Amino acid sequence: MLKVGVIGCGYWGPNLIRNFSQLSSTVVKRVSDLDQARLKRMAELYPGIETTTDYRTIIDDPDVDAVAIATPVHTHHGIALDALNGGKHVLVEKPIAASIEEAEELVRLAGERRLKLMVGHTFLFTSAVRKMKEIIDSGELGEIYYINSQRLNLGLFQQDINVVWDLAPHDISIILYLLGQMPRCVTAVGASHINPAVEDIAILTMEFSDNLIAFVQNSWLDPDKVRKMTVVGSRKMMVYDDVQPTEKIRIYDKRVEKPKYYDTFAEFPYSYKYGDILIPKINGAEPLHAQVCHFVDCILNDVEPITSGKNGLDVVKVLDAAQRSLDRGNNKIRLR
Amino acid sequence: MLKVGVIGCGYWGPNLIRNFSQLSSTVVKRVSDLDQARLKRMAELYPGIETTTDYRTIIDDPDVDAVAIATPVHTHHGIALDALNGGKHVLVEKPIAASIEEAEELVRLAGERRLKLMVGHTFLFTSAVRKMKEIIDSGELGEIYYINSQRLNLGLFQQDINVVWDLAPHDISIILYLLGQMPRCVTAVGASHINPAVEDIAILTMEFSDNLIAFVQNSWLDPDKVRKMTVVGSRKMMVYDDVQPTEKIRIYDKRVEKPKYYDTFAEFPYSYKYGDILIPKINGAEPLHAQVCHFVDCILNDVEPITSGKNGLDVVKVLDAAQRSLDRGNNKIRLR
Amino acid sequence: MLKVGVIGCGYWGPNLIRNFSQLSSTVVKRVSDLDQARLKRMAELYPGIETTTDYRTIIDDPDVDAVAIATPVHTHHGIALDALNGGKHVLVEKPIAASIEEAEELVRLAGERRLKLMVGHTFLFTSAVRKMKEIIDSGELGEIYYINSQRLNLGLFQQDINVVWDLAPHDISIILYLLGQMPRCVTAVGASHINPAVEDIAILTMEFSDNLIAFVQNSWLDPDKVRKMTVVGSRKMMVYDDVQPTEKIRIYDKRVEKPKYYDTFAEFPYSYKYGDILIPKINGAEPLHAQVCHFVDCILNDVEPITSGKNGLDVVKVLDAAQRSLDRGNNKIRLR
Amino acid sequence: MLKVGVIGCGYWGPNLIRNFSQLSSTVVKRVSDLDQARLKRMAELYPGIETTTDYRTIIDDPDVDAVAIATPVHTHHGIALDALNGGKHVLVEKPIAASIEEAEELVRLAGERRLKLMVGHTFLFTSAVRKMKEIIDSGELGEIYYINSQRLNLGLFQQDINVVWDLAPHDISIILYLLGQMPRCVTAVGASHINPAVEDIAILTMEFSDNLIAFVQNSWLDPDKVRKMTVVGSRKMMVYDDVQPTEKIRIYDKRVEKPKYYDTFAEFPYSYKYGDILIPKINGAEPLHAQVCHFVDCILNDVEPITSGKNGLDVVKVLDAAQRSLDRGNNKIRLR
Repeated sequence: MLKVGVIGCGYWGPNLIRNFSQLSSTVVKRVSDLDQARLKRMAELYPGIETTTDYRTIIDDPDVDAVAIATPVHTHHGIALDALNGGKHVLVEKPIAASIEEAEELVRLAGERRLKLMVGHTFLFTSAVRKMKEIIDSGELGEIYYINSQRLNLGLFQQDINVVWDLAPHDISIILYLLGQMPRCVTAVGASHINPAVEDIAILTMEFSDNLIAFVQNSWLDPDKVRKMTVVGSRKMMVYDDVQPTEKIRIYDKRVEKPKYYDTFAEFPYSYKYGDILIPKINGAEPLHAQVCHFVDCILNDVEPITSGKNGLDVVKVLDAAQRSLDRGNNKIRLR
Repeated sequence: MLKVGVIGCGYWGPNLIRNFSQLSSTVVKRVSDLDQARLKRMAELYPGIETTTDYRTIIDDPDVDAVAIATPVHTHHGIALDALNGGKHVLVEKPIAASIEEAEELVRLAGERRLKLMVGHTFLFTSAVRKMKEIIDSGELGEIYYINSQRLNLGLFQQDINVVWDLAPHDISIILYLLGQMPRCVTAVGASHINPAVEDIAILTMEFSDNLIAFVQNSWLDPDKVRKMTVVGSRKMMVYDDVQPTEKIRIYDKRVEKPKYYDTFAEFPYSYKYGDILIPKINGAEPLHAQVCHFVDCILNDVEPITSGKNGLDVVKVLDAAQRSLDRGNNKIRLR
Repeated sequence: MLKVGVIGCGYWGPNLIRNFSQLSSTVVKRVSDLDQARLKRMAELYPGIETTTDYRTIIDDPDVDAVAIATPVHTHHGIALDALNGGKHVLVEKPIAASIEEAEELVRLAGERRLKLMVGHTFLFTSAVRKMKEIIDSGELGEIYYINSQRLNLGLFQQDINVVWDLAPHDISIILYLLGQMPRCVTAVGASHINPAVEDIAILTMEFSDNLIAFVQNSWLDPDKVRKMTVVGSRKMMVYDDVQPTEKIRIYDKRVEKPKYYDTFAEFPYSYKYGDILIPKINGAEPLHAQVCHFVDCILNDVEPITSGKNGLDVVKVLDAAQRSLDRGNNKIRLR
Repeated sequence: MLKVGVIGCGYWGPNLIRNFSQLSSTVVKRVSDLDQARLKRMAELYPGIETTTDYRTIIDDPDVDAVAIATPVHTHHGIALDALNGGKHVLVEKPIAASIEEAEELVRLAGERRLKLMVGHTFLFTSAVRKMKEIIDSGELGEIYYINSQRLNLGLFQQDINVVWDLAPHDISIILYLLGQMPRCVTAVGASHINPAVEDIAILTMEFSDNLIAFVQNSWLDPDKVRKMTVVGSRKMMVYDDVQPTEKIRIYDKRVEKPKYYDTFAEFPYSYKYGDILIPKINGAEPLHAQVCHFVDCILNDVEPITSGKNGLDVVKVLDAAQRSLDRGNNKIRLR
């Protein structure tokens, strides 16, 4: 039986506690939060759990095998570092850290200590994203031309990070997973309307090799909740609409056909294929359940997590480039 | 009775002919096209019309008062110049010309000749866009924070222009009309997948004064037909979905409320208003009918068209900046 | 070249005139209407057409080969009878006549005179209904359990007929076509709210053999325009939503599975299959064009129309049963 | 602190246990179920609860003040009778009982014993239905002409009751609540396809006074989940779509206008109003929470529940009439 500690019982922490509690292979031994009221609530819901306002109590407990960290982004690095140094496996919420340097240090330390470091890119544990990956890898869509992702909503403004650091980790982690490669360049444009120091709308452009391009649009200021990703390939197109309760993916047998031979572009004979649409059945299991199961599996069987620290670092590299582009007048930033 | 000539009988010309034919105040006397088959078809549909492959025949006819030009973009300037020099009022399809210089010359010449020069920004003649303008001008939305516009589809690749010059004139003309101001800067990102010389997807960013920003996304490579514009204000939000047959506009009584006073941003107490949604009744008349009526009115009553040559020039200035941004690695272009 | 006369230039007649005019194998020689203004309008649109307020002028013209009748329902029988007696092939709008007796007389006369009698059940000429027929006949849906059809809207109240006679002919003609059989019993329930003599909402139940049942709901008093038909089979289910511009048909790989063996129903182990959804590509051609082509083909090649007089009579038999059910306190009416 | 017992821990019981557990004014002392595995699961989730396979243990416990019954319909009467005789307040799932006689006996006994008897018509505790009631009572819709309700889905076949007894209690309870009156007649049509003894699709017609009519369509055999109710009034129309996550109610400013004066119906000058659509903000609280709060309030403050036993009896009267109509060849049944 794996003993787990959960650090942070705000918005996301309780979901981690619930999922770890429901597994037969894990037990949540300790939880921490700076807010006594949250701890009291957790103790009511889970009578056996020990609570503390000092997360070090969890890390100092030799009985605890792993910790899950659901605290504000700027604290991820410090807490995860302590946990790894304390010999705990670590599951940390996205983004893994607030800078490339911080993320790199965590990855290095986990490697040295031979501990699992996993980041909570939850969407990679949804059936829909797995299905998309399967479809793309099968070649059904042909060559991928571009991906267009929108994640818009009204609300849930964050205090310490802008909309890019808050929402884009979802889009970026999905796109990197689907494409299996890093972008060469990133450009970002944004604006701040409510809190002058914090962008509340933004568009990222990620340029990959072979003319493949991805747009990511994020907003905290939209009347509609939108979570839509379009993947356009040379043979077929695919739309992932996460707001739909069941029909999340559509595969369109549509394309523009390139002719084999032509003299001048002025005579370019475009031809269009408009075919059937397929909506594959998607399993509706809770992704966070799959995520915590995977974390436990990786620990027990010594496997590298799909959303490893390295993967978390890749997402931070893109976020860092986007932030530099925002800070430098929307210049195109080449990834190192 | 105003006598009209229509130059170009391809995709759009027949709509102009039909609308001018249905007005009681105008008659279509002559039409021209380089393709004899198109002329034959027009003659069948409209037995009284005289056809020619040489548009100069129309311009040389002293009986013709006005011409409508629906030819490829790169020919707009030359034909419109001839027409104005021939003393004809001119209605020209969007964009008015292929460069700022060309557009400026047309505006100057029309002014000197005291002839009407109007550009076919048809969306400004829809009831939906008029309604949006009315709502924004009434102050109901409060201060406008940002506009997000998407115009996506599969198909109708153009030969001589990219997706920006093809689709963005619609979005730009609507946005300039709604806001009543020109952007200070424009940034554009795009990519070419089918015809390597021609961008088939693109995102434009238009930065206005007072932190107001607009995004325009255009694509010829999307599985869904999308024509959606979101206007976010400090008091309310509005969505214009042109693909909806009747419910084109939604006004959301939603906002994030700024507190009057706060010490630090970390304590920023965001509060959200989620209220009713109103879908106003929109009149469904054909916008092209309203457009040709307006053209005739402007001629008969010597009024400046809403979509004047000046207006067409403004749109070309934004397109030109977008093109330069595309050509220069997505640099931000300051409008002159 | 077939010479056609069109009787009735109100709501539907002009569509017939336009379609017959566009065919290369037919010419519209004469049209009639009681309203001079309508005739004037037709003469403007089609300069070559001769107009008359007396439909007998058309029937007496030996040059006219066929007539299309788009007049109020109660006049169908008289005009069609005259036309058949005058030796003309007849295309008459739905429903073919106002009673079984009238319809039978027309069918008999057309047979005796060896003339084509066709009824304008336009939906049978849509690509969507043809596709549904193909799917059902292929056995893909398995045994058909039931059909549920809704045709609702606000408006277009008819003067001389109730909502059943106005809208249900569409649903009934489609259902009879899809199933290839007549119902054994019909029950109808309705109510009148605006004009006390005329039902404006109604539900029909058609009971076929083998426990197959169909519901048809019609309304002139609904805020939404609904045209939806669900076909539930033992293997798959299909939804036809005619209001959708392109995605008109959905095939659901869903079913409830009957176990092979069970002792008591109380232990009945229901099992459900929830699979993929397929949206087949549907051709979007105008059905009225296909309909007039078919009429011309049937005349020229001496073929029985798909929507023959016999077919029109079948629909009237169901309508007549529905009317009797409405008149007799919603009793179940057994078809003769 | 009110002590509550919950009888039945199958599909719905756990929701009752969870809600009663979360209230500060109630505690769930005992739960019963025939299935030991369910009891074990409940004991895991709620460590303090005592479990039993014999519901009489709960009723015999003098410490228990009230019981909630979530067992199969045919057992409602027996258990509720025992509970009332044991001096317990009773909340019983819908429908309250399997026959009018059973329901009447419960109502009588609760009255004699001065105990609260409440039925779980949960939809009457939703914000959406409350909002509809408010709108109708305000007169905004004018005179109500008709209500059309659809509740369709694939699955959840019941063993002991047909689709009418399973799903229609929701529609009937909402309609009776909205209209505040009982129907005079009920007609029902249905068919059985999976289990030959149990109708899986059905349509009910409820005729009220003043020509007001309501249709209720229920199905366990539909590919789409539909929960839609349209209320058509003389001034406005309203649609309640419970499947929508947030936009559940739409108020359409649409109507057909009756003229003040006309000679003959043939000249009846229909005129239509097509105005704005309003989507009012609806509070999204869990209705079952509101329901159990109301049950507790009624007990503590000796108030008659909104969904009283009398109300449950009214719903059973309509269900009984519907069943008799189904059993007697769809005859119209006059309510006693």
